[in-house]
Amino acid sequence: MAVTRVDLNSDMGEGFGAYQSGDDEAILGIVSSANVACGFHAGDPEIMARVFAMAKERGVAIGAHPGFPDLWGFGRRNIPFSTGEIERLVAYQVGAAQAMAAYAGYKITYVKPHGALGNLGSQNREVGEAVTRAIKAVDPTLVSLSIALGHQERAAREVGLTVASEIFADRAYEEDGTLVNRKKPGAVIHDPDAAAARVAQMVAEGAIETISGKKLETPIDSICVHSDTPDAVALAQRVKDGLEAAGIAVKPFA
Amino acid sequence: MAVTRVDLNSDMGEGFGAYQSGDDEAILGIVSSANVACGFHAGDPEIMARVFAMAKERGVAIGAHPGFPDLWGFGRRNIPFSTGEIERLVAYQVGAAQAMAAYAGYKITYVKPHGALGNLGSQNREVGEAVTRAIKAVDPTLVSLSIALGHQERAAREVGLTVASEIFADRAYEEDGTLVNRKKPGAVIHDPDAAAARVAQMVAEGAIETISGKKLETPIDSICVHSDTPDAVALAQRVKDGLEAAGIAVKPFA
Amino acid sequence: MAVTRVDLNSDMGEGFGAYQSGDDEAILGIVSSANVACGFHAGDPEIMARVFAMAKERGVAIGAHPGFPDLWGFGRRNIPFSTGEIERLVAYQVGAAQAMAAYAGYKITYVKPHGALGNLGSQNREVGEAVTRAIKAVDPTLVSLSIALGHQERAAREVGLTVASEIFADRAYEEDGTLVNRKKPGAVIHDPDAAAARVAQMVAEGAIETISGKKLETPIDSICVHSDTPDAVALAQRVKDGLEAAGIAVKPFA
Amino acid sequence: MAVTRVDLNSDMGEGFGAYQSGDDEAILGIVSSANVACGFHAGDPEIMARVFAMAKERGVAIGAHPGFPDLWGFGRRNIPFSTGEIERLVAYQVGAAQAMAAYAGYKITYVKPHGALGNLGSQNREVGEAVTRAIKAVDPTLVSLSIALGHQERAAREVGLTVASEIFADRAYEEDGTLVNRKKPGAVIHDPDAAAARVAQMVAEGAIETISGKKLETPIDSICVHSDTPDAVALAQRVKDGLEAAGIAVKPFA
Repeated sequence: MAVTRVDLNSDMGEGFGAYQSGDDEAILGIVSSANVACGFHAGDPEIMARVFAMAKERGVAIGAHPGFPDLWGFGRRNIPFSTGEIERLVAYQVGAAQAMAAYAGYKITYVKPHGALGNLGSQNREVGEAVTRAIKAVDPTLVSLSIALGHQERAAREVGLTVASEIFADRAYEEDGTLVNRKKPGAVIHDPDAAAARVAQMVAEGAIETISGKKLETPIDSICVHSDTPDAVALAQRVKDGLEAAGIAVKPFA
Repeated sequence: MAVTRVDLNSDMGEGFGAYQSGDDEAILGIVSSANVACGFHAGDPEIMARVFAMAKERGVAIGAHPGFPDLWGFGRRNIPFSTGEIERLVAYQVGAAQAMAAYAGYKITYVKPHGALGNLGSQNREVGEAVTRAIKAVDPTLVSLSIALGHQERAAREVGLTVASEIFADRAYEEDGTLVNRKKPGAVIHDPDAAAARVAQMVAEGAIETISGKKLETPIDSICVHSDTPDAVALAQRVKDGLEAAGIAVKPFA
Repeated sequence: MAVTRVDLNSDMGEGFGAYQSGDDEAILGIVSSANVACGFHAGDPEIMARVFAMAKERGVAIGAHPGFPDLWGFGRRNIPFSTGEIERLVAYQVGAAQAMAAYAGYKITYVKPHGALGNLGSQNREVGEAVTRAIKAVDPTLVSLSIALGHQERAAREVGLTVASEIFADRAYEEDGTLVNRKKPGAVIHDPDAAAARVAQMVAEGAIETISGKKLETPIDSICVHSDTPDAVALAQRVKDGLEAAGIAVKPFA
Repeated sequence: MAVTRVDLNSDMGEGFGAYQSGDDEAILGIVSSANVACGFHAGDPEIMARVFAMAKERGVAIGAHPGFPDLWGFGRRNIPFSTGEIERLVAYQVGAAQAMAAYAGYKITYVKPHGALGNLGSQNREVGEAVTRAIKAVDPTLVSLSIALGHQERAAREVGLTVASEIFADRAYEEDGTLVNRKKPGAVIHDPDAAAARVAQMVAEGAIETISGKKLETPIDSICVHSDTPDAVALAQRVKDGLEAAGIAVKPFA
């Protein structure tokens, strides 16, 4: 059966106080799901309320985007927490996001961990399970959005959460489905047209294409586009255009 | 009709990381309601989960205890936020507390602002209303616990929240129902027996006794006892004993 | 005697972690003095070392730019600290800046408080004196750079510190030498040419021109230009060009 | 030649805001050197100024005690920083400590890294060298106090810093001079008399005794006693008494 829709998600609300990160307003005009930082690696109640309100206005789905408590490192570093601690810091942030969404008259429908926490949950069984337990404990109706073929995806499925799987628009994949290290040649797809074409193809085929050309079958519910690089808005738009040109509508997975 | 019950509440979970504040376990053995810090003026996800679990085990009711984001000042300073900002930082903390309670298999039933935020909400109409709006936006079934005869109490009643009013066990009151400034003589009642007797009398009479001996009629749903002074546990126990000796049972207001 | 030189200063290094604020590199190509944030209202050791190194390379003088510990509010709010606490938080930041400058093979020559702390020190006698005592205690050879005609300026002179006085390039002045409130019409001079001409004239005359046209005589050792507005670089360049066209060289005051 | 003196050092000033950690006043009455937290893993300007003033009054030497910026984890976790970042965050803290000491009319004479940073600098060549470079860049007259036989000790010697080496009063040692892991039996010496006797013997012999009874020759300039355990004061006193009974005076190494 032909794939006719996919979600486009992006990290958002990643400023803090007077600091800005990315052009949330522009990105919200393109994506179908907004992963909103929850105040630990970035974000604060002001920003959360503002982004949730903007997303509501535009009909963009919203999710909690919990990260390590590491404003200094923008959530990109593995801060040594036990899995129990990770469970609790995810639970805390999900609750905060739910409340800020309610405050904005809206509702979060999913959780996607940020940066180092997202990668760790994908690569490490125990962390993937910890994140999953946190989501389930706070609200089992929330969708777990995570990296395709990773541990969080599997763990979430096992405990009965609804699962959405994402691929990256501009990253190459290894044979085992992990991302090619950024230091290796070809790790990042810089040409927007190439990225857009590649994404449309992978979604249509229901498979990740690895760097060697192998196909890894997987559900692909969402495409992750970045929001904090200089050309983020342009790339997101190109990916969306490419999907629509291929007859795939961009809509929230939920 | 004779008053037969009242709540006894105390601030709790006010450590941070490796730091401790007060003997939560001992206080939880005495009070009927635990106001649990939400990570802004004190507290963190670990402490919240632990205190909520202990409270559940002991049948102690739990409430969110939001404060200014001021770990340095322990939430005792008026940080200059707009009322809109106050709304949002209260909403955030209430949501975080709800999630941590859910994580612990329990449920918060009320919100009581901490320290400077609690005082400001009681003394300042706009702040009292801002706190109230935040509670209502996040969950209108939550009880607003605040200082008797203050602005938050009135504002909460006006917007239709269930209201609980508290008095302090060890503080003297001015004629207008505000607390006597700590710098004035007689502001703090240091003798535990005097405090206990006074509290039992005020609850029985349904009125605050001012420093001049005047009676201010008010609902008294809860008595606030401190948790972070050296003799906090002893005072709380004395107040409870005094109430029970007067035929007033100590039970959650909710 | 004709004035032949003046300093041009700007706040710098006001990012935090991954966050940026302003175009430090461009501003460093224009100004003669860089006020570098010290990690309390903004800045971190990475940024401090980087800005100090860039300033050294360009021959720009450097100063510590201490602020309230208020990353959330970017140091623009009056956080309620006692004067004793202000003394100590200024001392701490000055020491940190000295060390980071030494690390970069350079040396700070002055201290200029940031935002709310700078304004408070100018308007409030006790705070102005507290800041001054902190500078003197840490290193009495450091110059106190502060708002012309304010309390810090006077206090610094009284305790024997070397004093530098600054005016703002784009702000109107009241009769008493304080800034016209931003909410009032005419408070901010938006036209770069007007700002540049006005600054050159005030420096040449050794007097602040008030909003009514009155002249307030004062030493003017430095002009403050902003770094974090969209047109900051252009305005700074225009002011510098205006000064040089008037025969006034832009050089560090120290 | 008989050893006639040794230093006794302890971590101090490790509270934050309203939080306390350990009994600084009691410990200051016993030790000869106070390692004072610098605001990153613990401590703040208020506490630093207070402890430095108390140390001055008692003639106790003071040192900067820099740690990872990790209040949540009390500096006990390896936060992933590059060695360049470690250099700069150590430099920053050393400068802050110098300023607070100057403010208190006193002077730091040494630097001892805290917790995870201290262990890492001892076990990891690059980190040991980074810490050393930071000290040298800020003030080459400062003594590097570190764990005997570790990388920081060696690196500090190589770059020409004055070096002081410490052993722990209550920990067992492996054959290679590293501490026995706390999870292994015998890792911690709980009996104060045993600890005191052992320390006196190691100082007298100029050698660490390993868990197997082997002797590792090393300069022993200082003994580290803890300050934040319930029996810290008693153990410190016992160690001091043991040393003095063995004819070894407790005096600052500097």
